[in-house]
Amino acid sequence: MTDQTPPSPRTRARRVHERARYDRESLNAILDAGLICHVGYVFDGYPVVTPTIYWREGDAVFWHGSSASRMIRANTEAEVCLTVTHLDGLVLARSAFHHSANYRSAMLFGRARAVEDDAAKIRHLKGLVDSLYPGRWESLRPINAQELKATKVLWMPIDEASAKVRAGGPKDDAEDMADPVWAGVAPLPVGLGALQPDAVTAEAARAAPVISRRILTSA
Amino acid sequence: MTDQTPPSPRTRARRVHERARYDRESLNAILDAGLICHVGYVFDGYPVVTPTIYWREGDAVFWHGSSASRMIRANTEAEVCLTVTHLDGLVLARSAFHHSANYRSAMLFGRARAVEDDAAKIRHLKGLVDSLYPGRWESLRPINAQELKATKVLWMPIDEASAKVRAGGPKDDAEDMADPVWAGVAPLPVGLGALQPDAVTAEAARAAPVISRRILTSA
Repeated sequence: MTDQTPPSPRTRARRVHERARYDRESLNAILDAGLICHVGYVFDGYPVVTPTIYWREGDAVFWHGSSASRMIRANTEAEVCLTVTHLDGLVLARSAFHHSANYRSAMLFGRARAVEDDAAKIRHLKGLVDSLYPGRWESLRPINAQELKATKVLWMPIDEASAKVRAGGPKDDAEDMADPVWAGVAPLPVGLGALQPDAVTAEAARAAPVISRRILTSA
Repeated sequence: MTDQTPPSPRTRARRVHERARYDRESLNAILDAGLICHVGYVFDGYPVVTPTIYWREGDAVFWHGSSASRMIRANTEAEVCLTVTHLDGLVLARSAFHHSANYRSAMLFGRARAVEDDAAKIRHLKGLVDSLYPGRWESLRPINAQELKATKVLWMPIDEASAKVRAGGPKDDAEDMADPVWAGVAPLPVGLGALQPDAVTAEAARAAPVISRRILTSA
């Protein structure tokens, strides 16, 4: 594979070309900064968009759910569009027209497939847990056969994908620059709040978990 | 209209019923807390999911874009699924299987229509700006004919919709409760960072804008 995903008819940006990115590094950075994606699929002829947890490993993205879930069943061996978006800030301009938002988004097209092999399924579920909580998997009891059967892991390759990024301040019209209006950016950082141990954990006064900063944007 | 949206075959929750909400108040609260939705539509037979700014007014949601945009053109008079998701926190359980996320999501199905009337278009664009920045619209120069022509506003009624909410701590298996594992919630609040006026604004030392707290979740 190459570091550059050539744009396809579906991923080539039609407008605002300067926001488009097709290199794998930009794409991976956006994917790795997220936890929730929106998976689009066609069900009974209608579009459906379901939010779900996803994660990336190498050249593929993964998502999972109950084997009985409508989304999981509809996605298996189906064409999907998997989109990840991070809202970074509000952009206030001198005219209503130029107001905008700073964001990073990734859009992947492809066919979703199930991970069939149990050992691979466990390895990928470990990938999810440890990507959020480094080392946590080993501190938990092993996943059991019933849990494994109840969980389906889907994946799609990252081979028809594009990213879009908007960053920076407003792009106002020259003739508006003297208008007496505050213009700039209002950042919307995602932080980590104070951990809330449940009652049993609190009694035992156990050490707090390690939480990855990968999905956080606050300092 | 009623305060309760009866579930349709598309919106009735199939699983984890206790997370489903069909009342308009829950739905509106979720919609009003967001800025970016993911619109799903079928294009050339394939599902496409595009992130875009949306807003609610009364019994409808609105989104907008360039009249030339592929998404806007494909959505007009088409069946869409518009989904809004807020990620509130990470849920750490005593087993990998019961790890989860706290979230609020809303899913709307229906046909997207264009706002044709120019006066209505202006009124709705004002609705968006003022929902984020109360009173700001009146401080900006009026939108001009060219900008209005370049902008298309789409809407769909909120009449086939559902919400899902997960909140609270982990739901562990009874036999795992004695395991020496930290379990609880790691909140992921969205805050408002320090405002970043652009160079021209800074020189003029203008008053900072009023920014609504509607999309923030930090204290």
